[in-house]
Amino acid sequence: MDNFVWDKDRQSRTGVAEAVFCAHKSDQDLRAIIEFSQSNEAPVLLTRLNLDQYQRLPVKLQQILDYDTTSSTAIINEPPTIVSCNDICIVTAGTSDLNIAAEAQRTLAFNGYKAPIFSDVGVAGLWRLMEKIDHIRQYKIIIALAGMEGALFSVLAGLVRAPIIAVPTSVGYGVSQDGKVALDSALASCSPGILAVNIDNGFGGANAAIKIINQFSER
Amino acid sequence: MDNFVWDKDRQSRTGVAEAVFCAHKSDQDLRAIIEFSQSNEAPVLLTRLNLDQYQRLPVKLQQILDYDTTSSTAIINEPPTIVSCNDICIVTAGTSDLNIAAEAQRTLAFNGYKAPIFSDVGVAGLWRLMEKIDHIRQYKIIIALAGMEGALFSVLAGLVRAPIIAVPTSVGYGVSQDGKVALDSALASCSPGILAVNIDNGFGGANAAIKIINQFSER
Amino acid sequence: MDNFVWDKDRQSRTGVAEAVFCAHKSDQDLRAIIEFSQSNEAPVLLTRLNLDQYQRLPVKLQQILDYDTTSSTAIINEPPTIVSCNDICIVTAGTSDLNIAAEAQRTLAFNGYKAPIFSDVGVAGLWRLMEKIDHIRQYKIIIALAGMEGALFSVLAGLVRAPIIAVPTSVGYGVSQDGKVALDSALASCSPGILAVNIDNGFGGANAAIKIINQFSER
Amino acid sequence: MDNFVWDKDRQSRTGVAEAVFCAHKSDQDLRAIIEFSQSNEAPVLLTRLNLDQYQRLPVKLQQILDYDTTSSTAIINEPPTIVSCNDICIVTAGTSDLNIAAEAQRTLAFNGYKAPIFSDVGVAGLWRLMEKIDHIRQYKIIIALAGMEGALFSVLAGLVRAPIIAVPTSVGYGVSQDGKVALDSALASCSPGILAVNIDNGFGGANAAIKIINQFSER
Amino acid sequence: MDNFVWDKDRQSRTGVAEAVFCAHKSDQDLRAIIEFSQSNEAPVLLTRLNLDQYQRLPVKLQQILDYDTTSSTAIINEPPTIVSCNDICIVTAGTSDLNIAAEAQRTLAFNGYKAPIFSDVGVAGLWRLMEKIDHIRQYKIIIALAGMEGALFSVLAGLVRAPIIAVPTSVGYGVSQDGKVALDSALASCSPGILAVNIDNGFGGANAAIKIINQFSER
Amino acid sequence: MDNFVWDKDRQSRTGVAEAVFCAHKSDQDLRAIIEFSQSNEAPVLLTRLNLDQYQRLPVKLQQILDYDTTSSTAIINEPPTIVSCNDICIVTAGTSDLNIAAEAQRTLAFNGYKAPIFSDVGVAGLWRLMEKIDHIRQYKIIIALAGMEGALFSVLAGLVRAPIIAVPTSVGYGVSQDGKVALDSALASCSPGILAVNIDNGFGGANAAIKIINQFSER
Amino acid sequence: MDNFVWDKDRQSRTGVAEAVFCAHKSDQDLRAIIEFSQSNEAPVLLTRLNLDQYQRLPVKLQQILDYDTTSSTAIINEPPTIVSCNDICIVTAGTSDLNIAAEAQRTLAFNGYKAPIFSDVGVAGLWRLMEKIDHIRQYKIIIALAGMEGALFSVLAGLVRAPIIAVPTSVGYGVSQDGKVALDSALASCSPGILAVNIDNGFGGANAAIKIINQFSER
Amino acid sequence: MDNFVWDKDRQSRTGVAEAVFCAHKSDQDLRAIIEFSQSNEAPVLLTRLNLDQYQRLPVKLQQILDYDTTSSTAIINEPPTIVSCNDICIVTAGTSDLNIAAEAQRTLAFNGYKAPIFSDVGVAGLWRLMEKIDHIRQYKIIIALAGMEGALFSVLAGLVRAPIIAVPTSVGYGVSQDGKVALDSALASCSPGILAVNIDNGFGGANAAIKIINQFSER
Repeated sequence: MDNFVWDKDRQSRTGVAEAVFCAHKSDQDLRAIIEFSQSNEAPVLLTRLNLDQYQRLPVKLQQILDYDTTSSTAIINEPPTIVSCNDICIVTAGTSDLNIAAEAQRTLAFNGYKAPIFSDVGVAGLWRLMEKIDHIRQYKIIIALAGMEGALFSVLAGLVRAPIIAVPTSVGYGVSQDGKVALDSALASCSPGILAVNIDNGFGGANAAIKIINQFSER
Repeated sequence: MDNFVWDKDRQSRTGVAEAVFCAHKSDQDLRAIIEFSQSNEAPVLLTRLNLDQYQRLPVKLQQILDYDTTSSTAIINEPPTIVSCNDICIVTAGTSDLNIAAEAQRTLAFNGYKAPIFSDVGVAGLWRLMEKIDHIRQYKIIIALAGMEGALFSVLAGLVRAPIIAVPTSVGYGVSQDGKVALDSALASCSPGILAVNIDNGFGGANAAIKIINQFSER
Repeated sequence: MDNFVWDKDRQSRTGVAEAVFCAHKSDQDLRAIIEFSQSNEAPVLLTRLNLDQYQRLPVKLQQILDYDTTSSTAIINEPPTIVSCNDICIVTAGTSDLNIAAEAQRTLAFNGYKAPIFSDVGVAGLWRLMEKIDHIRQYKIIIALAGMEGALFSVLAGLVRAPIIAVPTSVGYGVSQDGKVALDSALASCSPGILAVNIDNGFGGANAAIKIINQFSER
Repeated sequence: MDNFVWDKDRQSRTGVAEAVFCAHKSDQDLRAIIEFSQSNEAPVLLTRLNLDQYQRLPVKLQQILDYDTTSSTAIINEPPTIVSCNDICIVTAGTSDLNIAAEAQRTLAFNGYKAPIFSDVGVAGLWRLMEKIDHIRQYKIIIALAGMEGALFSVLAGLVRAPIIAVPTSVGYGVSQDGKVALDSALASCSPGILAVNIDNGFGGANAAIKIINQFSER
Repeated sequence: MDNFVWDKDRQSRTGVAEAVFCAHKSDQDLRAIIEFSQSNEAPVLLTRLNLDQYQRLPVKLQQILDYDTTSSTAIINEPPTIVSCNDICIVTAGTSDLNIAAEAQRTLAFNGYKAPIFSDVGVAGLWRLMEKIDHIRQYKIIIALAGMEGALFSVLAGLVRAPIIAVPTSVGYGVSQDGKVALDSALASCSPGILAVNIDNGFGGANAAIKIINQFSER
Repeated sequence: MDNFVWDKDRQSRTGVAEAVFCAHKSDQDLRAIIEFSQSNEAPVLLTRLNLDQYQRLPVKLQQILDYDTTSSTAIINEPPTIVSCNDICIVTAGTSDLNIAAEAQRTLAFNGYKAPIFSDVGVAGLWRLMEKIDHIRQYKIIIALAGMEGALFSVLAGLVRAPIIAVPTSVGYGVSQDGKVALDSALASCSPGILAVNIDNGFGGANAAIKIINQFSER
Repeated sequence: MDNFVWDKDRQSRTGVAEAVFCAHKSDQDLRAIIEFSQSNEAPVLLTRLNLDQYQRLPVKLQQILDYDTTSSTAIINEPPTIVSCNDICIVTAGTSDLNIAAEAQRTLAFNGYKAPIFSDVGVAGLWRLMEKIDHIRQYKIIIALAGMEGALFSVLAGLVRAPIIAVPTSVGYGVSQDGKVALDSALASCSPGILAVNIDNGFGGANAAIKIINQFSER
Repeated sequence: MDNFVWDKDRQSRTGVAEAVFCAHKSDQDLRAIIEFSQSNEAPVLLTRLNLDQYQRLPVKLQQILDYDTTSSTAIINEPPTIVSCNDICIVTAGTSDLNIAAEAQRTLAFNGYKAPIFSDVGVAGLWRLMEKIDHIRQYKIIIALAGMEGALFSVLAGLVRAPIIAVPTSVGYGVSQDGKVALDSALASCSPGILAVNIDNGFGGANAAIKIINQFSER
């Protein structure tokens, strides 16, 4: 484990637990990190651990992990259950955004927050959003996901009091194939109060929401 | 007038009258074009003729022109009034889009179409659009203008049967300062049936609307 | 089917039937959508359903689908045949544009419009276009497809009275490998009256054409 | 005032007061908006009202405005003073970020929040930030401004529990001349919990902070 | 003249005479270059010498120069007249391209080649090009200029045997405002045999034509 | 063969023989084109026919083709041998550019021109170029290939009288991974007389050279 | 070996030994280069030789190579051991940067320099860097690697006297997926004295360090 | 002086003296910085202080400054003369690069290093560089400046043992108008050992050179 430095006090310093981004890591480094984490007995969230990487792990390490295919996340040493405070909801423009929504939802759960997903309420059929808007309005923070042109961010921000954490997704093709249009739509929105994270960054959106809640709760 | 070739049969060939884009032309070429047009007795629309260019023209040429500051357009040899058919309306997200809306409106008028402008109905306050949507629905073609993130295009296209001709505008700053985000939002929209023209191209949006109407009317 | 919200009145609200974009959807969500659609007895068009996705479906779901490899589209619950009105034609610059042309053609057919394809009439050999131009001129709306530099859009728009719906394609390499040059050529054209949709968006081009026809016909 | 639609219930609907973005507006539209606002007796914040625009206003309208050169903002009908709750602070990487910091600070004040500015604590001299970090940690939300490479966002987010609202600024030259690098640094940060707004969008950063505070306070 | 190194044998080494690009040069360096060139008695072509730079020169240096406003070029020590060989013609899509066409024409003249300009033959009105195409076909090399979408390059290359030297111009707005679309259209053309130079580089286009002629003539 | 229109007089009209770009074509269309070409008895050059496409062809069609793996080209109905005129040479910066160099060389050969390749003379070791420069100078036209930063184009153009046809290649990584830097270096070169074609367009570079030679020879 | 020109005096001319970039080379050219190098008895470093390329080599050539998977490098004719002078260290922001760090380390070793790697000291947990900063300060040159937002470069440059050679890596996703943000952060840094090489260019970073050391040592 | 934090120990911590980047600073902040610096009696270098900013300063502050128009730099409290060690030279591709070269030269002088400028040795006329190369080779570090396509960097790096600090300049137009091509050429060079700083960053190039020298000298 020479190559990995445990951020031992991240939880107390920043309010969010240790997580490891697995996308570019070698199989060898992943194995070392998982073994170290287990022996360390601290809860760790692995993100962007794709199915291929997972399946190349030794079986005994696979068994240590609570792995979820939809979100490509895994948990080592499940943290003790924390009572959900029900402050956050997740809203998606389409069903294609669900993988990233799951990454956000699992990150929240790992940190003790249970958040429902309102899916497929994109603005092409505005009535779908309007049917659910009163329900959505009850949450203190909204994590919204949209790809393509990301118009959902602007419409939502004009309808609710909650801050919108916009997670643009790489759903689309042609000019929007990499999520850049959805991101720029969030940033350039005519509706004030939208906050953006990186494309497909469900983990980051969840972290920001957690930081906000932490600041205003007694936890 | 060596440098300018009169497109003598454009009206009959393509259904839209001759127009001259003045933005990059020298003062000398502009003078020659205006003089030629006048002597030719054909109606001509000058677009992107900014106030400086206009004021540098000899007074006698200024007097030939019916110049409009808001739209930066001028007309030579006003065409005979044509009865408005009231098929087209113009919708803008904000008051900042009005210069380009005026370019579209004047181009339509020059070709015999009277079109009202519904302004400042951007989606940040959705009720503004909803108050007028029944009125907007009565038009066969909608020319919509929006800068910033251009969410208006998607919302509108989901609410009406009419095709949307999206004219993205260079209203905004930061990531949207050149109108690119609004354009890409129109192209990447989750609502089908949106058709885009170049940024700030009110003239082009109007021309396309005219071509459509021409194809389906007996005129 | 929690993740998918049926846009039940899209047909009456916007004039185009429900369609599902399959590109980023999980196998599980696709299965749910197909099953729901079948039980709902409404016609549905699936677009961007690639051969791999199709072949991973259970055989009984494959049998429900009228799948077409060239266009990567499938139809559930074929709509009743509608008499073609022959208003729209499709024009392609090269044979490489045919997949996207097929997407447009199938979308039109699903909505009751039969449209012929005039293929391989790019401007490198202008006589190929000129031989067919009188035939093309008989249609009220032209859906034009071109990749590379997209010069076909400008030439065509200068020759016909019909509005051109430009569908840029991702045919090309080097500077044009992603279809961006063809798109920008449509938008920046010196010929007025060109309307652009997203790169490779044959579906969107067809939808816009349908919306136009719907507005001016008694259907 | 045909072109401007008053968003009468924005305050109650979204929790933030009406504001008008003046950057692309004509002198004529600005005059109409100011007159309407005054007669309406509601507090309004004007942003991006540059000195030239201000000086072209009739003197009697200038006198209505509480104009501030540094932030290019003006207030019509000052709202009743609200007791500051001292939850938000503003941090800047350099003195060149102060105009945008002032826009944020004035927007907060207009909505009843007093926020101090910690300026010139960029990471080139890390000790400058470390000297003030304990003081900064006392605030519940941090609005951070940085241009150039925006490294301040990442360092700050690793040191505090508060969520960081990153306002990238267009301070820099060469590759960073338009603020794009600072924006992308905020989005791509290795530190979780950073939330970004558009480049130079001090107004938007302040609005997001207000929305957060509103959600968690009894106001 | 410490800062400027005379390329004394460029003519014999590369076949084209010395030229000085003035765009970024200080007034002081320009003066030194002109004085040195005069004393050196060699013909020199100055390009991109704008009117402001010219007018800031001392009168005695202005008198040395044969300055042309349209092309922003100046000649020091006019070379002896060389019999024109009439191998090259210049073709422009619009009148807005004439400044750059003049730069090409003057560069050719300075090197002893007289070339006519066929202007305003863009493809929006194809008949304008077709009327002149037989005349254009008589030249061995064609320097073609176009801004906006640059479709002229492709159409021309499909009609003639001559190689096309494409000079994209920065004529346009929105997506084409900097000449990039015209350049990429030349590079991505479906017509083989198009050769591109930099945007607005009339000088470079002329130089390449001269190099070609030199290689195949006895001069 | 409905989808493919034979450009029957391209040779006489533009001076270069028919060629088919295979990159985006379906297997079905490729088969039809090859069969048609064979029956038509005209020589045809297929470019960008990759090994996979070739191997998926029926064996009897493979046998018709004179296929070359290095250049990914194939010839149908070899044209009668034409005496080489030895006017053109090909120069590459590195060995990685050889595939594209082979495409150029084969295109030249198909049209009757034999051209040698001077490879691996990039400017990192200037002596490699200098050792061969006298030999290179004997050719009338130089087709130069370079990826990465493309400095070879500028150096070469300053050393020879021949026009340089620059073929930028997609050799490189990081900022240069797509050949864009090499292309822009050719266009922005401080050495006049460089003419650029699209990235990896060995075919286009060869075509342009052929057009030039054709114009000045009696063939 | 026709296609490859041995840069025989590169070592004496530039101070760094011959190296071959293998990424775009054909199997055939690689074989020829390895055979030539062996017979030439000179030490050669192969970079970007991926595992697939290596495994396609004939076994006898594989045996000639000292191949390293992590860095994708191979050495032919190991140079005589040179005493390490311990002037250079390598610092990485995360474990994902280790492949590129290994390329740098192996290049240094091949040229006689032993350099330690300080890994995973990114600024999200500043204490990780601070724990090692005194150790890092002992080296004369620092090669720093970071992907994502690259904030490490700025923080490090403000803490040490040594010049920083920044090697941005393509670690990240969304806006930073290609390493461009990390590169631009190095270039736009508010800390003076940072020097950048291409994305993922561990080889180049090492070469620059070697050139610096060579200039100031007696070797 | 609330907004400016003096980096009191930068000299001892990083080896380079305090400098202030003036480009985006308000007149008021500039005055405060100058007054503070004077009273502090420490030498300070002001960079990017353009003539307009300088002339708007009160006369008594102008007199404090040793202002240089060419480099847009000013010095407060000239440091004691340090014996030049003659290790660094500056090389420019053209005379248009001289302003940025002057910024580098003045920064070096302020820190005690005298460096000559070899100007106008761009590769279009390679002999100009070759005439001076032996002289250039005598310096330990080379700061090279080039705009346009930046080929000078690659050629130079292949000819000398010294590391090249490449300062790309924004000299050029069309594709190279912002210096991006020259920058990318430095980064993508086929010659190893080139180190890049931001576009037009003569100050940064000088700082890096100083840091290198400091590390290896006894000063």
